[in-house]
Parts: sequence; C-alpha cells; structure tokens
Amino acid sequence: MSGPEDELPRWELLSDELSFQARVWDLRTRRYRQPLTGQEGDFYYLNSSDWAIVVARTKAGELVMIRQFRWGVDDFTWEFPGGVIDEGEDPVVAGLRELQEETGYVAQSGRLIGSCSPNPAILNNKCHVIFADQVELGETGTDWDEHEEIEVRIIPEAEVMDWARNNRIGHALAMMGLLYYQLNK
Amino acid sequence: MSGPEDELPRWELLSDELSFQARVWDLRTRRYRQPLTGQEGDFYYLNSSDWAIVVARTKAGELVMIRQFRWGVDDFTWEFPGGVIDEGEDPVVAGLRELQEETGYVAQSGRLIGSCSPNPAILNNKCHVIFADQVELGETGTDWDEHEEIEVRIIPEAEVMDWARNNRIGHALAMMGLLYYQLNK
Repeated sequence: MSGPEDELPRWELLSDELSFQARVWDLRTRRYRQPLTGQEGDFYYLNSSDWAIVVARTKAGELVMIRQFRWGVDDFTWEFPGGVIDEGEDPVVAGLRELQEETGYVAQSGRLIGSCSPNPAILNNKCHVIFADQVELGETGTDWDEHEEIEVRIIPEAEVMDWARNNRIGHALAMMGLLYYQLNK
Repeated sequence: MSGPEDELPRWELLSDELSFQARVWDLRTRRYRQPLTGQEGDFYYLNSSDWAIVVARTKAGELVMIRQFRWGVDDFTWEFPGGVIDEGEDPVVAGLRELQEETGYVAQSGRLIGSCSPNPAILNNKCHVIFADQVELGETGTDWDEHEEIEVRIIPEAEVMDWARNNRIGHALAMMGLLYYQLNK
C-alpha cells in the first residue's frame, strides 16, 4: 500500500539473512533504517509460502470443519481445511486440493473471497480464503500428508457461528475465513 | 480440549528446546512421538506472550483504526490497536493500555469478547479481543514504544466492514476481531 496514505516514512531495508531453517518456513532477520531519524534495528520474520483455507458448504448448508493436533499450542483445534499453496499453484486450485486431501470432499469449482496477511509483523505471506459451494464426499477419499491425522465433521452454518462466538474455533485464520464468508459468499 | 472429542491420539512431547531468540518471542523446537505408530518428528514454534487487540467504538459509532509499518510484510497495514500483554496483566487492562498508548483514545471500561489462537501450528499463545465502547480522545496523548509510528483514523463501522470485504484490512487478527465484534458486541 502506498500513495496518498503515506504520511509515515517507509523504513529502508538494509539486509535480509537466514537465521533458522524449519520444515515449511524459515526464520530470517532483516535490518532496517528509519530514513528520517537514522535509527536502525533488527526485525525477525518467518519467510513462508502463501496459504489457502477453504470454506466448503454442502447442499444442505453445512460447513466442512476439521480437527487436528497442532504442535504450536500442543493441543487439538477446530478450523477450516487448508494448507500451503505449491509454487505457481492457483489459490483456488490449492484450496480445493487441500479440501480433498484433508477431508475427501470435492467441489466442482471454488471462488476466492478474500486475502489477508496472517500476521504482518511476523510472517511475510498471505492467506487466501476460498469458498466452495455444494461440496460432496468424493470417491477417492483422503490423502493426508506425513503427520496429518484429521477428524472431519459436517456442521450446520449456524452452529459454526455459535462455535465462533463461544471461542470453540481454535485458529484465527478460520475466524478470518468466516468473516470473509459472511461478507463475500 | 480433551474428552469426548478425542478420537485422535495426542502426540507425546519428548523435548522442547530454544532454537533462536528474537526480541518479543523466541523460536523453539519440540520433538514429538505419535503414541500409536511410534513415529517421531521435530516441530518448530514461536513461544510468545499473549496478545490483546481492541475494537474501540466512539459515541458516533466509528471504530478506531491504526496504520503502521510492519516489518514481516515490509509494508504498511491497517489493523486494530493492540499489543503484547505484560506478565500478570489482565487482557482488558492490556487492551485499554495499548489503545491509549497507540492512539490516545481512552475508555471507561472494556469487555473481553473473544479469545483465539493466532496460529496454533506456529504460535503457542492466545490473542484476546477487547471491546471498548464510547471511547474518547484522552488528555495524555500517545506513548509509542520504540520503533512505533502510528497513523490513527476514526472510521464509520460500515466503512470498516467495506474495508474488510475489499481486503483493505491487512491483519488476520483484525479480521478475527471484527468477527468477534459482530458476534458478541
């Protein structure tokens, strides 16, 4: 974002170095200079591919929710299907692929309903939200990645909103997906 | 979360070690074992204090939005005020403190309207969402942290929803905050 909103100075990027390599992202350190004050500082971020999550709705108006063990919180969370977009892959294609792999549900088509930074302070990527309507259980079943173990549940939309209201959705990106769904479905 | 929903096995935590220390969080490596298969793996996460963000509404029904340079995306983003909760600090107190420090707006009281993991795969913390109604510009002004430079804008609620719809909100946690606001205000 730039242009008429730019009253604040853009910090100058001085360097950008690998600090730690994890499996699907790496930690990098950037050194910046504030152009007006000359102040410098190191800032740490995770370099990651973009992600796609899917709000998948059945003909009966239920949403496809998944529950899986998440190592960051050392616990299970309810969220939407989704995952990492492969290099060069279209976000909609990635979302429908993750939906099928994680849940076995398939859709004739999907539509991008929103894109946002998961955390602009810590991560450099985007999370795209795909809406897939009239999804059905396909014939090929699931295809879990290594370490994936997923419970799939089909839940009426109103109940998903109750879960959101009552803090039973365990992932901010699923909350974001629900808002985009409300606004752009 | 445990109990009747537990059809999936909980992974056993074998070790948890510091891998890299950043300013406000550190990167840690956990080794886990799947109890049924014996499969082991390393998982990386950021160890962070909890965060609080604030949906602050004026008497005229506008919301207090901020814009700041975010080093993760190397760009400016629009989002809600918020920050790190100090050790032992109540989330509502933290939210109102951050509101005042970042924007100069003050509230008589606030209310917790939701809590969620920002990213259960990567982070171990929670983000709490505070709703503060009838906020007013206080007399003490702002008190920015080192590196903070913030543009404050007061925007009618309907326009904020348009921003959300059109991907102009640049932080998933602000989107989450907006959903909690819709559901629990």
